[in-house]
This record gives sequence, C-alpha cells and structure tokens, in this order.
Amino acid sequence: MIKVGIVGGTGYTGVELLRLLAAHPGVQLTAITSRKEDGMPVADMFPSLRGHVSLAFSSPDKARLNECDVVFFATPHGVAMAQAPELLAAGVKVIDLAADFRIKDPAMFDKWYGMPHSCLDLLEEAVYGLPEVNREAIRNARLIGLPGCYPTSMQLGYAPLLAQGKPLVNESMLIADCKSGVSGAGRKAEVHTLLAEAADNFKAYGVKGHRHLPETTQGLQAIAGRKIALTFVPHLVPMIRGIHSTLYAHILPEARDVDFQALYERHFEGEKFVDVMPPGSHPETRSVRASNKLRIAVHRPDGGDLLVILVVEDNLVKGAAGQGVQCMNIMFGLDETTGLTQVPVLP
Amino acid sequence: MIKVGIVGGTGYTGVELLRLLAAHPGVQLTAITSRKEDGMPVADMFPSLRGHVSLAFSSPDKARLNECDVVFFATPHGVAMAQAPELLAAGVKVIDLAADFRIKDPAMFDKWYGMPHSCLDLLEEAVYGLPEVNREAIRNARLIGLPGCYPTSMQLGYAPLLAQGKPLVNESMLIADCKSGVSGAGRKAEVHTLLAEAADNFKAYGVKGHRHLPETTQGLQAIAGRKIALTFVPHLVPMIRGIHSTLYAHILPEARDVDFQALYERHFEGEKFVDVMPPGSHPETRSVRASNKLRIAVHRPDGGDLLVILVVEDNLVKGAAGQGVQCMNIMFGLDETTGLTQVPVLP
Amino acid sequence: MIKVGIVGGTGYTGVELLRLLAAHPGVQLTAITSRKEDGMPVADMFPSLRGHVSLAFSSPDKARLNECDVVFFATPHGVAMAQAPELLAAGVKVIDLAADFRIKDPAMFDKWYGMPHSCLDLLEEAVYGLPEVNREAIRNARLIGLPGCYPTSMQLGYAPLLAQGKPLVNESMLIADCKSGVSGAGRKAEVHTLLAEAADNFKAYGVKGHRHLPETTQGLQAIAGRKIALTFVPHLVPMIRGIHSTLYAHILPEARDVDFQALYERHFEGEKFVDVMPPGSHPETRSVRASNKLRIAVHRPDGGDLLVILVVEDNLVKGAAGQGVQCMNIMFGLDETTGLTQVPVLP
Amino acid sequence: MIKVGIVGGTGYTGVELLRLLAAHPGVQLTAITSRKEDGMPVADMFPSLRGHVSLAFSSPDKARLNECDVVFFATPHGVAMAQAPELLAAGVKVIDLAADFRIKDPAMFDKWYGMPHSCLDLLEEAVYGLPEVNREAIRNARLIGLPGCYPTSMQLGYAPLLAQGKPLVNESMLIADCKSGVSGAGRKAEVHTLLAEAADNFKAYGVKGHRHLPETTQGLQAIAGRKIALTFVPHLVPMIRGIHSTLYAHILPEARDVDFQALYERHFEGEKFVDVMPPGSHPETRSVRASNKLRIAVHRPDGGDLLVILVVEDNLVKGAAGQGVQCMNIMFGLDETTGLTQVPVLP
Repeated sequence: MIKVGIVGGTGYTGVELLRLLAAHPGVQLTAITSRKEDGMPVADMFPSLRGHVSLAFSSPDKARLNECDVVFFATPHGVAMAQAPELLAAGVKVIDLAADFRIKDPAMFDKWYGMPHSCLDLLEEAVYGLPEVNREAIRNARLIGLPGCYPTSMQLGYAPLLAQGKPLVNESMLIADCKSGVSGAGRKAEVHTLLAEAADNFKAYGVKGHRHLPETTQGLQAIAGRKIALTFVPHLVPMIRGIHSTLYAHILPEARDVDFQALYERHFEGEKFVDVMPPGSHPETRSVRASNKLRIAVHRPDGGDLLVILVVEDNLVKGAAGQGVQCMNIMFGLDETTGLTQVPVLP
Repeated sequence: MIKVGIVGGTGYTGVELLRLLAAHPGVQLTAITSRKEDGMPVADMFPSLRGHVSLAFSSPDKARLNECDVVFFATPHGVAMAQAPELLAAGVKVIDLAADFRIKDPAMFDKWYGMPHSCLDLLEEAVYGLPEVNREAIRNARLIGLPGCYPTSMQLGYAPLLAQGKPLVNESMLIADCKSGVSGAGRKAEVHTLLAEAADNFKAYGVKGHRHLPETTQGLQAIAGRKIALTFVPHLVPMIRGIHSTLYAHILPEARDVDFQALYERHFEGEKFVDVMPPGSHPETRSVRASNKLRIAVHRPDGGDLLVILVVEDNLVKGAAGQGVQCMNIMFGLDETTGLTQVPVLP
Repeated sequence: MIKVGIVGGTGYTGVELLRLLAAHPGVQLTAITSRKEDGMPVADMFPSLRGHVSLAFSSPDKARLNECDVVFFATPHGVAMAQAPELLAAGVKVIDLAADFRIKDPAMFDKWYGMPHSCLDLLEEAVYGLPEVNREAIRNARLIGLPGCYPTSMQLGYAPLLAQGKPLVNESMLIADCKSGVSGAGRKAEVHTLLAEAADNFKAYGVKGHRHLPETTQGLQAIAGRKIALTFVPHLVPMIRGIHSTLYAHILPEARDVDFQALYERHFEGEKFVDVMPPGSHPETRSVRASNKLRIAVHRPDGGDLLVILVVEDNLVKGAAGQGVQCMNIMFGLDETTGLTQVPVLP
Repeated sequence: MIKVGIVGGTGYTGVELLRLLAAHPGVQLTAITSRKEDGMPVADMFPSLRGHVSLAFSSPDKARLNECDVVFFATPHGVAMAQAPELLAAGVKVIDLAADFRIKDPAMFDKWYGMPHSCLDLLEEAVYGLPEVNREAIRNARLIGLPGCYPTSMQLGYAPLLAQGKPLVNESMLIADCKSGVSGAGRKAEVHTLLAEAADNFKAYGVKGHRHLPETTQGLQAIAGRKIALTFVPHLVPMIRGIHSTLYAHILPEARDVDFQALYERHFEGEKFVDVMPPGSHPETRSVRASNKLRIAVHRPDGGDLLVILVVEDNLVKGAAGQGVQCMNIMFGLDETTGLTQVPVLP
C-alpha cells in the first residue's frame, strides 16, 4: 500500500483527491494537513465522506508527512515550492496540484503568479504531469507539477495536430475558446462566484491575459518542437464541474487532404483516459462528470479549412485530482487506471 | 418628485431598490452612499444599470442625505439605528430594509442580532412596514422597519386565518416550511452560497432557530390579538430569487365548515399585490419573479383537517425593496402601485 | 457471476442501473431491451457509458431474458406485471423499479395508476424492496416491488418513531414536506420539466394527491402495526438529483422524555446505507449524490413538542437503482454493499 | 392606440411579447390566437400575467385579426408565410418572429427549413427587422422578417468592422463562438432540453451546420457589400435566457493602427439599445436580462492581430420579442424606446 499524505485538503481539488483516494485499492490515506482545522475529522467538513474517510486534519508540524511515500499538495500557489525540498530529501515523492512547478521559465512564473520562484533547481527537475504526453518522464519522476485544468484540455486537444513532423495548421493562429464550471475558481469566499451572481449567467473573463496561457503555450511548443501562438479566451459557465474547450485551427493548404479523424484516433490509440468520439459527435461535459475521462470530437465544418476540435473533461478529475492519481499510479508502477475506473455520473 | 437617498447600495436589496427607483415616475434618485466606493458610478458596479442610473456612490459624510425627503437603509443590521435619529430630526423619513426596527422587544432584538438596541424611543415609534396589515400606520409614519423576506410570506399567508375573531386553526401548532433562493443570503463573500456549493443541492438550515422566527411570531400575534406558536424551518433552494412558503395549520373542529378559499379571497379583496389563486393552484416562484406580487393558494388535501397554504414572493421585491417602495408610495400619498407595475419575468 | 437483464434501459433509472452494474464485481450485464432502439449500442445513447458498457439494446423478443438470473424492470408502470409471470416461471428473479408491485390493494393500485392490476397472485407474493425494513423477506423473494423515491425517504425517516410498541408521536397528524430534483420526473419529453421552465424556480405540486401517498401510508402502517395518517406535499427543486424530506411529528405528552437522537441511532445501528448524523446537523442532498446513502438528522426545535426529521437521499440511487442493486445483493447472498461503495460526488 | 394581434402566443417569444406589450403605453392588445387553447385566458397558461393580461386565446378563425393594425407571428416556421398575404391585403402590417421572411434566397430557405417558400413576392418585399442596420426600410415596411437570436448578436457584433469602405479584417476567416440559454430552443416538449439533461452541463451542437448561419452570412454581406465567410459554432448553456457571442476576426496588416474601440463607439453613437462598454469590459448576459439592450466589448489581446468581440443580449428580447416591438415602434412613428425601457433584472 502506498502511504499518501495530502497538504491542504479543504479546497475542491483536496476533497476530490479524498474521494478518489478513499476508493483507491492501492493506497493508505495517512495524513492530511490543515493548520486551521487541526483535529477536525475530514468528514465533519465534507459530510459526503462520512463512512468513507475517518482521517482528521492535523497541523503540518504534527503530520509526519515524511513518513509518506507520496504527498499531494492541494494548496495555494507557493506552498509546494516551500515544502517540497524537505520532503524530497526524505525520499518522499511530491505531486503538486498548484502552479509551482508548471512553468519552466522563472521570470514567467513571477510575472503571472506574482512571486519569485524560490526553488529553481527543483523547478528544472520537476516533470510536467500530463501522462499522455510525458508518460516516461513521469514514471521516473520524484516531483510532478500537474497541469492546470484548462491547459490539460487545450494540450490534449491540440496535441495530435502539433505532434507531427511538419505543421498541418497555421500554428501562429490557434484560438481556444474555453468554458469552465465554477468549481474551477476554487472553494474561496468570493462575490463573483456566488450562486446569486454566477447562476443563470454567462460571461468571458481574463481576455486580456490568463495564467493558463503561458503554461499552455509552453506545453504546446514542447509537443510541436516549434513556436506556436495561441489566443485563449476563458468563460464562466453556471455549472459546478466541467470544462468544454472549443479549439480552432486553420488547416494549411498542404494538409487539406489529411484525415484528421484518423489522425486523432491513431494519436490516442491505447490511451485509457482519452476518448476520440465518432465523427459528428458533440461531447457534453456531463459525459465525463466525476470521471478521469477526456473526450474529443473532430469537426471540419462544411469540409472547409477550419478545424474545430471539441474537448470535454471534468476540471476536478482529469483537470486536477484524477490526473494526479494517474501520475501516482505511473510513478509507483500500478496499472494506470487503478482507482480511476469510475463511470461518469449522468444525469 | 420625491428626493430619495439610499444608504448602502452595494448589496442585493440595494441594487434592487435602484432598479425599481430608476423606473419610478415620482422619484428623483438623489444620493447613494458607500464609504468604500466613494466616487464610483453605480453603473460601474452593476452594469445592468448602465443607461438607467447615472449617480455615483458618495461617502456618507458628503452625501447630504438630510436634503432628501426619504432615505432607505439597505445596510447591515445596526446602521440604521445609528443614523436614523439625525435624519428624522432633519425631517427626513426613513425606511429601513434591515432588522433594526422590526422587533419591538429590545431584549429579543439583542438576543437574535447580537447587539443592544441603541435607539429605544424610535423603536417604539417605528411602524412595521407590511402594508396589507398596517396600511394606515404606514401612511403617517416617519420611520418604517420593513419586514424580513420570510416573515412577509408567512404573515400574509397566515393573516386571513388569524385575523378572525376566534381561532379557526390550532394556533399553537403552526408549521411554516419555507424555501428561499440564495439571494436571500445577500451579496457577501461566503463559501456556503458559492454556486459550486449551493447549486444542484438542497438543504434545511437554522432549524434550531432563525432570526425571522421572533419577528414573525410578533407579527402573527399582532394580527391575531392572541398568542400563537410557530415552528419555522427554512431551506436553501438553488435558485437566485424567490421564496416559497408552505404553511400548515390544523383546522379546529368548530371551523370545519369554513370556506377557506372564500375567506382568503375576501380578506385580500382590493389588494393590488396579493393574488389569491383559484382553488387547486400551485403557485411558482417564477410567476412573481422581479415583481412586487405575492401569490397564495389554499389547499385542504382530501378535504381533511389540515390546511396547506402555498405562498410565493420575490424575496428581493415584495420581500424587501418593492415593499419598501410600496411603503414610500403610501407615505407620500402616491398611488400604491406607482413604479411597481412590472410584469413578472417568465421564463 | 450473476447474469443480469434490464428491460427498458433508456430512462434515468435504467442508465443509473447501468452505471452501478457496470462497476459491480459480481455481475455480468447480459441483456438490455428496448424495442425502439434495437441494435443501438447503449453507449451511443449515453456517451457517459463509452468504455464501460459494450452491450447494445435488443428488442424484447430477441433478448433471451429467461437465461438471466435476475431481470430489472426500469419501465413505465404496467410492463413488469405483464412480463414477470413468464420470467418467474423460467426461474428468473424479478426486481421492478416501477410501481406494479408496490401497492398491495389492487383497487388502490387501479385508482392511482389508472389500470387494473393484471397479476393478483404475484402482487400478493411480491416483497416490498426496502431492505432496512424487510431484509429477511427480500432474502427469499423471487419478485421485488421496489419502493418509490419519496416513499423510501419518508418510511426510513419515520420508521424509528413508528416501529415502537406504543405511539410516541401523534400518528394521525404526520406531515411530510418533500422536495425532489427533476430527474424524479423521468427522462420524458415534457414541457414542465424543461430547464427553461423548472430552473430558477420552485413550486409545490400534487397537493391534492400523489401516487406515493398510498404506498407510503401502507408502508408506515406495516412498520407501526397501526393506522397512521400522513399529509404529503411534494415540491420540485431546480436540481438534477436528490430528495430532501422534511418530516414533522407531534410528540405525545407521554413521550416527552424520549431521547430521539438515541432512538434513531439505535434503530439504524449496523445499517450500511443509513447515516444518522450528529445532533444539529442539516444534511444536504449533495452529501449523498450518486451514492446509495441516506442521511438523517433529528431536530426538536426549542426543545418543544414537534420533531423535525430531515432526510436526504439520491432519488436515482437509494430511491431507485441503488436500492434495486442492494436487494439483488441480498437475494443472491452477496455482501449487501457490493458494487455500492461509491463515495458521493461533492462538489 | 395601436391594435395588436398575436398569432401563436403559447411559446417563449409569445409570452415575452405579452410581457412587453402588456406594459406598452401605446398598444391595445386585441387578439391572441391558439387553435388548441381557444377560450382559455392567457393568464391561466402563464400565471405571471395574472393581473396584467385579461385576454383569452381565441381560435384563428374567430380572432378577427384583420381589424388589427399589426399582427405578430410567434409561430413555427411556415405559418406566417401562409397567413401574411391575407392580412397585408387587409391593410394589416405583419411582423414575423419566425424564419419565413429572413432568408432572401428561396432555395436556401428550402434547404435549411425543409419546406418550399410559398410566398415569393412577399419574400422579396419583406424587410429584415434589424433596426440598427435597416431603420429606414423598417419605417416604411408592411412586412418584417425579424432576425434570429444568434444572428442579431453576430451581425451587430461584426457590423462596425464590416461596414467600412475597405476590409479591416480577414473577412473570409470570421469565427463566431456563440453560447445560448435554453429558452432559445423554445417551449417544446423535448428530452435534450430537460433540466435533468441540460443543467450542470455544457456542449456544442450543430457544428456541421445551423440555420442561423446562412441568415447571418446574408446579413453580414449586406452590411459589408462584399462576400464574407463565417464559421459559426453554437453551444448550449445551462441558463434560461441570454446569448453570449464571442466573435473573432484577424486584423489585416493595413488596419493595425485602427482604434477599434473608437470605431465601435462611433458606429453605434446614438443607438439606444446598443451599449459599447469601456475597454477591458466583460459583459455578462445577466446585465441585459429581460431588457432590450445589447452590450458589446472590444478586445485585442496582447495588442496582437486578433480582435475578440464580446456581445451579450437577451435572446427573448433583443433577440426576438423586444426587437419586434422596437420595429413596431419605428413602423408606427413612436419613439423607438416606447415600452422598452425595462431595467435589466440583476441578480
């Protein structure tokens, strides 16, 4: 049994980790920390866990995290980079659900997250936890920086197009029109995500710039081995979970005859968590609700020169906690689907 | 034109007051105060008001509220009782949407609102702003304590039963099972009313005791002229606006032959904002959305001895801002429906 | 492996059965029938099942249901009573999720469901599938009539009170104010459950009479061994899943000293799917979302003589498909929790 | 007073017309037809209208529509073109909210609406009811074909760009990523728009082709006086009202120095129902809820060569009934805003 610790389990990615790990047959939940809630049974905060998780929060100093095999950070940005060095030194693997180890360029990190990176050598060592792109590196990693929720959907949605030897689409004119449920904003007391503000409403936000843009650009460039340019427009949907990314790409004249459906199917062949749907499909976010699946449909309206790629994922599972468990499974030599076989909840 | 000031216009009852007053033909919006937002145009905070309200927030000291004819307080509990004396002294009428002047017993106020009442003589003078019960007193009032949202629905729902010379129902066994949309909790940064917490979910709260219970009991006793006992169980509905109160009352043996439908119709005859629906109706909250109407249906399942009264209102209109405007119309001798003729928004 | 057939898998209880059975380790999904969708892979209708269920719908005549060990009916009322006799004769056990075998009095069935009962001897034999009340009878049953969604919550909520030798509460004045998500109305093309009708809205319905009332009364009387009288008022909540029942009972003078919290805890001791929450709790529907748990809280406002029992369940799981699987587990000698250990999905 | 008739008032655009016309000071609601509901008071179907509309539905033959000054068709496609000729011959003006008179090319109409056009000469005469583009033609029209909901937002969103003498953006690569609330699908009994299907969910639809594409292309070409090519991807949002269109356009090298914010402000100067918001704004659908306003924000992320135009409208008001009333006001010489001054309902 893998001994697992969680730092900061009071947010949505934390409680989602608990949901998944409580049912994971290869895991022993060992510690969960919260300075503020020290001593409080986890199930008192999240009654959904009554009967499933008997653990109580403990303050970080008492938690003996360095006796764990792996520790997940479900914390605000900046916490993992402060605590990871000591854990790694104690032989504990670290999986960070926040942004500390996502962006390789420390200046870029500073610009978008408003803090200098305190841990540059680890930043270099850290592996970007997107298994469908980085599986081998993850297998041998000590430290994982998990992708953000939007970036997961954009990178997997564009990967088959960009991973080819030469460009198939105009890689400097990519447009990602993305829509997220409100849980993506976290379990924080804020006005703009109140039900009375966000329900029965729809809006774009962050059009000027969003933290997930540099991360995604970095990831897409790594996949392509070339410079790319992406416009990313996020929107807030009055729903709890789910991301729907509508990705646009202009097909280059020399690629007009490519069978893009086949390209996508081939690219993701054998992947357990990526489902390329039949031609003409319109995947719904609820078709992956509470599961680690990501579904993709490939459209070429009117047979023209614009590709429209539709991608759905559960932002808290494949976009966060589930992807973290998937990485853990790889790192510890388990079957990649262990504990991740939940059937999506519909309706 | 009535010169109107608003103290504290950044919450839901405040913006609703603005929506109603901006379209009120007899009103000149003169000042709206917010210390924090001094100088900010109201329409910058609430873009829905762009093109309708050109006023900016001003800090309380600059607002010259004592040049107004009437000032509404859409503030946290405790503000109105601190500022009302000065305004009244200057000849300004005051309508408080908070709880400062609702509960006549200062000890009770202290117990439920956690602060001593600082203004006892005004408390005695203040008129409870429920026009269908208190119209004449309102007409001559300088100071109005507006009912809470739940209490409005419970009092108007029970009034025809209790306003009779002798009891028709067991008045010590009243049960009000009430359901409110989330805007009732206000525009405050809190976790439990986030969309991701409150959507696709239903729960009771405050079963142990809720501030609206003593207020309602006081009001029902005033209507009945007798002691009554009420159990009040509020619930949170994943919707923005609306209250649905399901009221239960056990019919006394001597009242078995009463035609309760007729009783209700007679009681509210001529009332412009109370609609007694035909027998067998199930009023919906959306049938009063964004309007000052309150609709009531009277049921007696299986012809038995239990009355079931269904009441719907928009908590922000008849349950707050609209009722305030209705009181203002009465106080200033306008037709009671002036500025309150909005057709409910459905769907 | 238990060979399982499903008749009528295109509604919500059908797809929920599929979700549960696809992950059930002791089950082999053998056939699912739909005359209309003959040949269509189930996952084409419900993409959430892609990768989990490879079965296709087959027309009833081809489905060879009598080679199954057990057949679930997730059909409109009236279908199971037509087809059960042949299956039972072939040695197949039958679990009906519709109402055909719930109400023991055929006249009552006819009155509420608008059709004569065609299968009176089986009606007598059929066991009411509420394990926490009827476990032993279920163990030996060939034919199960599963409780309705509301009745499950009302019966388990009132059971500890009524199951005592002598009355503790006024059993002729029970009031159940129940609230259900919209999936309870089924996957039927209807106007009143459209999102544009039912969202951001709340209403009561069926106050005159609802099919679940006679079923619940019958069940409560069986538990009490006495006559009871219940008023049942259902409401429609703008959410997908979940039932919240607020149950009222007037405590008899002789029972004033009973510790009702302890009574409930004792009554459900050892039950895996019933969770009596700590005093003062307000269970939320989302705390049982997508799980077979039912949670109960016991309140006695102000220490008075009115009990308020709060009950939540997922109407599609404990209120339908999950309870069916629970019965199946009992009937086939499996651990009762097999395939039913899902952690509720929150948020 | 303008005598107004409505054909087919049982859908969402019909009830929205009723809401607006009931409060319109220059209108006398004269007749509303429904064969099925002959004799039923309108307020029985829509209780929100109780106290506001006393009219009953009448069957088309009894309705004496030709005594009206203007008749609105809020009917399925195909009805208006069958009945308009007789009304026009009787001197009655006609405003069609359906698609019968939107598309000028009858072959195109046939292709997308699956019926031959039966009324070619009127098709030619009909004026496309988009006041901000076609005001003068509307003033003198007998017959209006009102734009669809999506097309209104796309045409007004792109108009300032295309209405210039020479192209500013690549007009053959326009992309409109649009999102609509569920009321856009109408008040029809269907499964896919049930709350239990559409809530807490997001998806694209009609990516292969949507009826609003040819209409929008025709409109944009009329504005530009040039051929354009548009990709239109509609999505379904779990909300009742509102459309949010995110419009993309690649700026041509020769237009890099254009001040697009100023261009938009200038273009819509004096328009009462189009609000160009300040730079950096993210308009929300709720900021126009239940009003005839359309709000636009102009973005140029990172100062690059891609314009992102955000447009919001209420699909039932500016996208349907409100626009119809606006056209009527113009046709009858009223102030264009008469009866359309509602303040948006927020929250």
